[in-house]
Amino acid sequence: MTTPPPAPEHLHHWVVTLSCIDGPGIVHAISGAIVAARGNITESQQFASLDTGRFFMRLQVESQASRDEFEAALAPVTERWQMQWHLDEVGRALRTLVLASTAGHCVNDLLFRQRAGQLPVEIPLVLSNHGTLRDLVDFYGVPFESLAVTDAASKAAFEARVLAAVDEHDIELVVLARYMQILSPELCDALAGRCINIHHSFLPGFKGANPYRQAHARGVKLIGATAHFVTSDLDEGPIIEQNVVRVDHSRSPGELVAIGQDEESRTLSQAVKWFAERRVLLDGARTIIFR
Amino acid sequence: MTTPPPAPEHLHHWVVTLSCIDGPGIVHAISGAIVAARGNITESQQFASLDTGRFFMRLQVESQASRDEFEAALAPVTERWQMQWHLDEVGRALRTLVLASTAGHCVNDLLFRQRAGQLPVEIPLVLSNHGTLRDLVDFYGVPFESLAVTDAASKAAFEARVLAAVDEHDIELVVLARYMQILSPELCDALAGRCINIHHSFLPGFKGANPYRQAHARGVKLIGATAHFVTSDLDEGPIIEQNVVRVDHSRSPGELVAIGQDEESRTLSQAVKWFAERRVLLDGARTIIFR
Amino acid sequence: MTTPPPAPEHLHHWVVTLSCIDGPGIVHAISGAIVAARGNITESQQFASLDTGRFFMRLQVESQASRDEFEAALAPVTERWQMQWHLDEVGRALRTLVLASTAGHCVNDLLFRQRAGQLPVEIPLVLSNHGTLRDLVDFYGVPFESLAVTDAASKAAFEARVLAAVDEHDIELVVLARYMQILSPELCDALAGRCINIHHSFLPGFKGANPYRQAHARGVKLIGATAHFVTSDLDEGPIIEQNVVRVDHSRSPGELVAIGQDEESRTLSQAVKWFAERRVLLDGARTIIFR
Amino acid sequence: MTTPPPAPEHLHHWVVTLSCIDGPGIVHAISGAIVAARGNITESQQFASLDTGRFFMRLQVESQASRDEFEAALAPVTERWQMQWHLDEVGRALRTLVLASTAGHCVNDLLFRQRAGQLPVEIPLVLSNHGTLRDLVDFYGVPFESLAVTDAASKAAFEARVLAAVDEHDIELVVLARYMQILSPELCDALAGRCINIHHSFLPGFKGANPYRQAHARGVKLIGATAHFVTSDLDEGPIIEQNVVRVDHSRSPGELVAIGQDEESRTLSQAVKWFAERRVLLDGARTIIFR
Repeated sequence: MTTPPPAPEHLHHWVVTLSCIDGPGIVHAISGAIVAARGNITESQQFASLDTGRFFMRLQVESQASRDEFEAALAPVTERWQMQWHLDEVGRALRTLVLASTAGHCVNDLLFRQRAGQLPVEIPLVLSNHGTLRDLVDFYGVPFESLAVTDAASKAAFEARVLAAVDEHDIELVVLARYMQILSPELCDALAGRCINIHHSFLPGFKGANPYRQAHARGVKLIGATAHFVTSDLDEGPIIEQNVVRVDHSRSPGELVAIGQDEESRTLSQAVKWFAERRVLLDGARTIIFR
Repeated sequence: MTTPPPAPEHLHHWVVTLSCIDGPGIVHAISGAIVAARGNITESQQFASLDTGRFFMRLQVESQASRDEFEAALAPVTERWQMQWHLDEVGRALRTLVLASTAGHCVNDLLFRQRAGQLPVEIPLVLSNHGTLRDLVDFYGVPFESLAVTDAASKAAFEARVLAAVDEHDIELVVLARYMQILSPELCDALAGRCINIHHSFLPGFKGANPYRQAHARGVKLIGATAHFVTSDLDEGPIIEQNVVRVDHSRSPGELVAIGQDEESRTLSQAVKWFAERRVLLDGARTIIFR
Repeated sequence: MTTPPPAPEHLHHWVVTLSCIDGPGIVHAISGAIVAARGNITESQQFASLDTGRFFMRLQVESQASRDEFEAALAPVTERWQMQWHLDEVGRALRTLVLASTAGHCVNDLLFRQRAGQLPVEIPLVLSNHGTLRDLVDFYGVPFESLAVTDAASKAAFEARVLAAVDEHDIELVVLARYMQILSPELCDALAGRCINIHHSFLPGFKGANPYRQAHARGVKLIGATAHFVTSDLDEGPIIEQNVVRVDHSRSPGELVAIGQDEESRTLSQAVKWFAERRVLLDGARTIIFR
Repeated sequence: MTTPPPAPEHLHHWVVTLSCIDGPGIVHAISGAIVAARGNITESQQFASLDTGRFFMRLQVESQASRDEFEAALAPVTERWQMQWHLDEVGRALRTLVLASTAGHCVNDLLFRQRAGQLPVEIPLVLSNHGTLRDLVDFYGVPFESLAVTDAASKAAFEARVLAAVDEHDIELVVLARYMQILSPELCDALAGRCINIHHSFLPGFKGANPYRQAHARGVKLIGATAHFVTSDLDEGPIIEQNVVRVDHSRSPGELVAIGQDEESRTLSQAVKWFAERRVLLDGARTIIFR
């Protein structure tokens, strides 16, 4: 919906996400509050979950209202419905911490896309348990630290450094870009809902070591990757994005690894992009993706 | 949004589509009317066109309200905003007339999917300017008529039969399933907005006879199909759906034809499905597709 | 390569598949034999397996030579290299027995494609442990038998009927089109390399009952299907074809089932088509697919 | 086919491409020559063109033979069949000159992939008719020159610089990475078969200025890109690769441009990769792509 054209210098472009217990009249109440905030809805998506009974919404709104005025206009509705909600500027770069180990494909893809303006994030630090990726990260002009993890004490030190960096840089998202250490339950809890991991995926799944070799031995025709929120239940957090690519019998185990890494890179970058654009909402163990 | 659970036997599942000149407050007004109609919105999509300044919306609503009560609840809003709007039951089979010539692939695909319950249409008649497809159509138990078109008089007779069939069967959609005659401007006008055609498409486009042979000669790597509304401007109506498929140098012109026909079949069926589900709205020369 | 154009009425179109222990000179020997058989290679694919050390080849050859002359020309090569090989006419319909239970989607797809000329098979019988699909199979004019399986004795009777039908109709391929009984190890052995099964597939895999409900609960973004050869190791035979399709949070468990069934249908039909065209060769636990 | 394992330090990995007038016995003769060169065929593709009567082949061969020995072994065959042929080391970086104007997306993608080891080329120079991209190219450490083109004389000077650079750097491929000047017929001829261009593509095609705006106005559902060899017939040279991506009504003309640029980048990089791997052969106005 359009309002009379405002002076461009005062026009904000807001993204609003919210969720609450579902019930009659929510959309009506929200749209009324947007009108009160002199807002023009330019994008709107909603979903009512039959699983949890919750209602979810994402709006992009153009408005001359300041943040204070906008929040004040929404307050009666968000309070009455006891909403979890978030207000942000469209396109604001999300402060993102990247954790890595020795594999560079995901880190490279994230930094390249960030630099090319395809990913609305800023990355104040890449933190690794190895020094391998220093040159790659330097190339993009991003600070890099490495801190070896060899035993329980050094692991605790690494995780303490993660939490310190989160504080120091006011981090909103932690990305495990092939960081090959299992996070402690405490760190998983501290980063709940704002930590994304990537791993390879196969049809069918393969347990145990060297899944690409197993996939080759079974002659799988599709290999892929899954990006998901980190929970203390290893590789079982809410799924954000998945992709697969077709392979055939002529591919060696080494080629399958290379193909799988490409899928990991693009799947992780896609998940980070959606998260940064506030398109990912949590509904219990599931994600709602407002693409 | 949910209302208290109604007795299931009285629960309607409505699909509402509407469009009007865009302006502040439309969503708020509509959602208010849905609340008044004791409705629970289960699916909602909207779009504001910067090209035409119009606002478009599609809603699926569960409600115990009868059609009369529902329409009465919406009337103040639709009148105030001078909306074009439509109310229908979700899943109702659309009365569809199919026109064909000698090629059977699109007709076969439509009849198969209709019979398999994948296409919410009923087809009271297939009308052709040839007798070729009689056995195929008989196989699906659908009435078939043929009427040769050889000159201006027989063409006029065929088109008169089309209009009579539209009347007789209260037809809501006419599908040109590789009907190889050009419709007269009068018939195009009479069927405006409810007649869908299919044709092959290439990158780049090829003019003139035998485009598949030209496509082969140029070694194109993609061939496809476009489903569009029929207008008196041949092959230039609003596009509903397009698909392409990858081909390579090893394909003969004959194989390209077969591959192109598969694309035509699935593209036409997809367009018909979306139209029957009220997912296709017209915005000037463009379509809005609420998938 | 072309030979001088033969009288068309004598021109055969042969498909040759072969495998043997890899070694220098095989392609040279084979191509020499084809020249001796007055053959013109129109399609040729080869693969050397590093896993098993075996060499695989598929050729399509136009030749005026009769089957006897063709076999005689190849014999010195196939004998010297101790090849497993097969000679057939391109496009010959494969005699195929279909086993089913109550779900009709795969059976319907196979029968539809067979009738539409898209699948080079003939189906002399559909055999089921339920009567549910009789009308569907009748519609396509294919004989149908049902034989209840309720205990060990009736299961043995059903499997005996399968083997009798294989004999009686000289069956070359058995397709489990959602046949929901586990085959006995004896039947698996008897049908080794000529029995194809289909099942749903997920990223990640889900164990136990109602995988679609589990997939919904985890919010998976891709669901798919796998067609594979039947071995006595349940759902673990060599994979022939896999497909996935994208889904999102808005899909109910019931919709996921419908989407998964579409994938099962097209994946099974694709696998049957490649098998019938002699494009599927076995390399230990893997398949070579010469698409 | 395998030969006895050679000492690894002497093992070459050759790629052989060839074409000649089709006739019986070619494959037999070639495979015999490979045996004579102590070669082990690891990849092999062939195609007989019914359009031109020519036969095409690409082989990857492991052999301990030196280039001289290898060429000597093939000579009798290539001479007898009057073959056009080429022998190269697998993976050798192709010397590639990039021409650009002001748009950076294709240049960036080529340089990024080259640096990431995904593209077997070396790029001694990026030459532009504008200075816009200097910083981008500097970032990758590649030499950059700009030379304004404003009239016939400066255009001739630019093209002379292109030919001088081709000589100086022994260039094997010239890539027009959104170079927005039309090449003179003389330059097209001088670079025939080794100059690749990229342009956007639509279904249907749009003539005239601002095709993205036209595509938006028609509501196209697919936009794409075509990479092709440059000939003096503008945008009509043999097609190497094409891609499309799905769009919908919600995309502004500006977003369509961004999406189209992504397709241009990946399509051009794919075409360059196949060319550098000697997978692209010319058959009259068509390309054979041995993927």
